[in-house]
Amino acid sequence: MTRRTDQLKLGAFLANSGHHVAAWRHPLAQADASLDFAHFRAIAETAERGKFDALFIADVVALWGHHHDALSRTARAEHFEPLTLMSALAAVTTHIGLIATATTSYNEPYHIARKFASLDHLSGGRAAWNLVTSVVSDEAWNFGREQHIDHGDRYQRAEEFHDVVKGLWDSWDDDAFVRDKASGQYFDPAKLHTLNHRGEHFAVRGPLNVARPPQGHPVLVQAGASPAGRTLAARVAEVIFASASDLADAQAFYQDIKARAADLGRDPDHIKILPGITPFIAESREQAQALFDEFQALIDPVLGLRLLADTLGEDIDLSGHDLDGPLPETPVGQRGSRRDKVLELAQKENLSIRQLYLRLAGGNPVIGTAADIADHFEAWFEARACDGFNVFFPYFPGGIEVFVDQVIPLLQERGLFRREYQGRTLRENLGLPRPANRFSRP
Amino acid sequence: MTRRTDQLKLGAFLANSGHHVAAWRHPLAQADASLDFAHFRAIAETAERGKFDALFIADVVALWGHHHDALSRTARAEHFEPLTLMSALAAVTTHIGLIATATTSYNEPYHIARKFASLDHLSGGRAAWNLVTSVVSDEAWNFGREQHIDHGDRYQRAEEFHDVVKGLWDSWDDDAFVRDKASGQYFDPAKLHTLNHRGEHFAVRGPLNVARPPQGHPVLVQAGASPAGRTLAARVAEVIFASASDLADAQAFYQDIKARAADLGRDPDHIKILPGITPFIAESREQAQALFDEFQALIDPVLGLRLLADTLGEDIDLSGHDLDGPLPETPVGQRGSRRDKVLELAQKENLSIRQLYLRLAGGNPVIGTAADIADHFEAWFEARACDGFNVFFPYFPGGIEVFVDQVIPLLQERGLFRREYQGRTLRENLGLPRPANRFSRP
Repeated sequence: MTRRTDQLKLGAFLANSGHHVAAWRHPLAQADASLDFAHFRAIAETAERGKFDALFIADVVALWGHHHDALSRTARAEHFEPLTLMSALAAVTTHIGLIATATTSYNEPYHIARKFASLDHLSGGRAAWNLVTSVVSDEAWNFGREQHIDHGDRYQRAEEFHDVVKGLWDSWDDDAFVRDKASGQYFDPAKLHTLNHRGEHFAVRGPLNVARPPQGHPVLVQAGASPAGRTLAARVAEVIFASASDLADAQAFYQDIKARAADLGRDPDHIKILPGITPFIAESREQAQALFDEFQALIDPVLGLRLLADTLGEDIDLSGHDLDGPLPETPVGQRGSRRDKVLELAQKENLSIRQLYLRLAGGNPVIGTAADIADHFEAWFEARACDGFNVFFPYFPGGIEVFVDQVIPLLQERGLFRREYQGRTLRENLGLPRPANRFSRP
Repeated sequence: MTRRTDQLKLGAFLANSGHHVAAWRHPLAQADASLDFAHFRAIAETAERGKFDALFIADVVALWGHHHDALSRTARAEHFEPLTLMSALAAVTTHIGLIATATTSYNEPYHIARKFASLDHLSGGRAAWNLVTSVVSDEAWNFGREQHIDHGDRYQRAEEFHDVVKGLWDSWDDDAFVRDKASGQYFDPAKLHTLNHRGEHFAVRGPLNVARPPQGHPVLVQAGASPAGRTLAARVAEVIFASASDLADAQAFYQDIKARAADLGRDPDHIKILPGITPFIAESREQAQALFDEFQALIDPVLGLRLLADTLGEDIDLSGHDLDGPLPETPVGQRGSRRDKVLELAQKENLSIRQLYLRLAGGNPVIGTAADIADHFEAWFEARACDGFNVFFPYFPGGIEVFVDQVIPLLQERGLFRREYQGRTLRENLGLPRPANRFSRP
């Protein structure tokens, strides 16, 4: 294969004390980081020093689980709301993109279109929307519903929601606001467009009360891995957060999405695929492994068993079982692929209950020296398994500092990553085109 | 009456190029201010230099009117969404309160509770929610409804909405988060409270995924002047934005609200009543009047006639009438008090059509020297017509600069206004108590 001429795109995942579920307990992590704006500001400044494309924040509109005994072992029960946090970070950063998650399941398209347009103006063109659908009942209960809308409907609603939002972003031509003091004309009414949307799930008249965003449309991010998710992503996503654990899977996903996009008439280069990756970095591989082991050792069994139950289902009762013994015999094939994969893994590698939950909790780490991490990035990038990475720092603030100080320079030396921001907007830095206004007359 | 021992509370109203409807056309105003964050940041910094209690931003979740020809003569068709703007301003200010407007008619209480809690944490206890109900159909049309819910229902919904939001803010005891690295306990589950609200309009389980706000509850602001509005305000408001045009009216409103609050068992001092006021300030009264006249002369007749139609109703056709002649004969008493008051005013003062719309557009100005403005503030305050003012600066950025440089020092010299911020939070600066958590055990 020929060497790629483009460069890596990198997202920095924001997560309270760190991405590792027990990070807050580790001496390297700040335990009371969750609602400390100065903490997030410092991370943002470090990420910008490292020339990251964007900050990214996940979300759930509920407590992150209703098993309070397990939740109380994590730093996830309190967190900033994404749009307020990203707006505050917009004011103290200059170049870095701001990717906020918002669900289409329990929001209104007018609010979402407006808030992201507002953030795009506040930040000078650095906003991105990570479009998600809601999957946990805890969210439904906060919005007057007993349970979630089913999977198919959820994606239909998401797609219509998306279309309305994009339509609202086109409410104004880019040059609609003339602001002519002499004539008294502030805008040209001929360049104002009323959407008048009436669909299956929404009736939204418009127009939006915000001028067209600097980026035209804020960047659209998606993470769907299911067939419905991939279909939507291939049609609308400009950045995709993937969760591939091995190179072959990542290559297959990459090719599938790019091919689907091409089939829909899109330029495959206009979708950037960024798998998540958690780097544990130290001076030697042994030290890095020891660091990882330290974090793993801090996972409370109550939390570990909850992670197992969330994956395997509540019908497997592990109480009374020896954590260092095997899983009780469990039939596979009942609940779909992730459960089965985990059960197969346990069987194949003969893992104890504890080893299995540690494997789940550990996520998808890359453990080694800065050079090892850079090698990994380069190998996946050149193998066309990705266009970059969404980096999950295991602990904050140190985890991103070591990455920026040690890994980024290696990527830069190899020509794999920018030394300075080239674009003014997130869209420009990502190499994505600015969309035309659907309503504008040429 | 004895002289008051407390001090004025001052809010600074944020409005694009200025509060005057034609401000953007005036040489003193910045025309392209509406979506310029640097502009709002400069205003916020000036307000903080002037020791204002809070910044305030109004809102409508739609274009500010659907008569595009008139709207295109104003700077109101594009504006930041309040929560994103206030979050960004939180990051670049230290002391000043941040009052964002959000409607209860087209929002969900979980989102609102969460965003204001998030803003309160971002700002270190400076958030306030201006609770409004929606009154223009343009908003209904953006949320899948043909028209607004009627007045009574709107306030019932608002009251229940409010109660749910406050309940969610009490989801956590103030000391729920222990973050004990050694034991692995991040929070104490006994200090987490699930609301389980089931009411007429909402079913919201909770708990909130944000720790209790620094202020306990963000400050609650309201502006209802109707009987239903006053009833709600007396029960829940901590700051009231009033719109009184003469001293006697203001005193009557002030006494009415404070008496209603006392009847409900509240301490009347815990509601701060701030009428809106628009100061036109110059070196002499003549120059101030000339300045006001300059702004008035910039009001386009298309806009002026729209203001009249919005007030008098669409059934009065003014097309073809001489702007400098009288209103056509119009029967009073059909549409309620504001219309009738305006018609009576026109008759009593024998105003032309142009004079009448200029009167409406000019709002409630106080025109004079800095000393005149300070006298006016002092007179109203000492007459117990208010606890302070929500200041509508006619133009930005100069309008607030002259106020801070010339009026604030006079108020300070007279002992009517603080020289330094005393409190850490908005609540403390306003002299409002921190509410106890309804769920906490002592």
